[in-house]
Amino acid sequence: MTALTPSMARLVQQLSRLPGIGEKTAGRLAFWILRADREYAQALAEAIISMKDETRLCSVCFALTEVDPCPICTDPQRSAETICVVEEPPDLLAVERARGFRGRYHVLHGTLAPLDGVGPDELKIQPLLTRLRDGAVREVILATNPNAEGEATALYLAKLIKPLGLRVTRIAHGVPVGGDLEYVDVMTVGRALEGRREM
Amino acid sequence: MTALTPSMARLVQQLSRLPGIGEKTAGRLAFWILRADREYAQALAEAIISMKDETRLCSVCFALTEVDPCPICTDPQRSAETICVVEEPPDLLAVERARGFRGRYHVLHGTLAPLDGVGPDELKIQPLLTRLRDGAVREVILATNPNAEGEATALYLAKLIKPLGLRVTRIAHGVPVGGDLEYVDVMTVGRALEGRREM
Repeated sequence: MTALTPSMARLVQQLSRLPGIGEKTAGRLAFWILRADREYAQALAEAIISMKDETRLCSVCFALTEVDPCPICTDPQRSAETICVVEEPPDLLAVERARGFRGRYHVLHGTLAPLDGVGPDELKIQPLLTRLRDGAVREVILATNPNAEGEATALYLAKLIKPLGLRVTRIAHGVPVGGDLEYVDVMTVGRALEGRREM
Repeated sequence: MTALTPSMARLVQQLSRLPGIGEKTAGRLAFWILRADREYAQALAEAIISMKDETRLCSVCFALTEVDPCPICTDPQRSAETICVVEEPPDLLAVERARGFRGRYHVLHGTLAPLDGVGPDELKIQPLLTRLRDGAVREVILATNPNAEGEATALYLAKLIKPLGLRVTRIAHGVPVGGDLEYVDVMTVGRALEGRREM
């Protein structure tokens, strides 16, 4: 890569650190940015910095926000009676996109992973318990991912929360909407049978 | 995407304008940048701006450079007798990576595409002819791409350059090294036969 200019080589190097972006893709992106108008480069650079500066965690639910508490926590239209617990901010987005949920959230920022040294204190579990003790909450929906770590974390939380006298639910496992039974894995089909409901 | 913060939404929007980056990938990149340390965000933003500010075109060969003329044009180790003509800056990199070439370059910044309104005046053809008239050059290697536009541009240039009494060559077409004849397209096999050489 002798003929990349030093400033392009630096940009390629920084872009290659992004997940899923190899050196070749980074080179292609750098050339594209070079060709784009200066306004775009400026807007992109500013968007990176301002996102970093302005986005922080809500002190109540630990969702990403620019105001604290976040708009969901302060929305009077949303019920304080139900809290949906998710692993990461993108999971919150996934639930919001489904549009059915009108309660509030709590973002754990991870799952229990004892082998990686992630215990309860590394997650936002204590703040969750504190929230649950204020009396407004009636149900906690555990929406951690349907994998080993997510299940273990859900079980751990259920054990902590049930003694508080709250309803604890887990999102349903089953065949995905639009999926084809033939191609769904056995575990999922098994769970879908277990979770069958009256029609 | 109700729950993206405004600054994240702006970053996702800017990232989605990059080629090959859809909204989903942009979201993933934005979350990754949010998680990365602030130094990385700063370094990435600065790399974008400084690349834009510092990289320009060499006034001799129109390669990308930060100094004018570019390091290749002023390298006394590189012969001024041979000029390799390429379409775009990445093509120059491709030839440099092959390491065999010790002459200089000329970047056209496009190919002739009359239907898209790209005529000879839109490319760096006049400056090429001016360079060729200074007496130092003996051979011009036409390394435009082996597709319809590249071939047409090479033919056009050959017609202009030959009358100047210079040697004009075209990069060889043939089967790629490591390729399997069975899977090479017929055009390429045909060209490889035409271009056969004594062993």
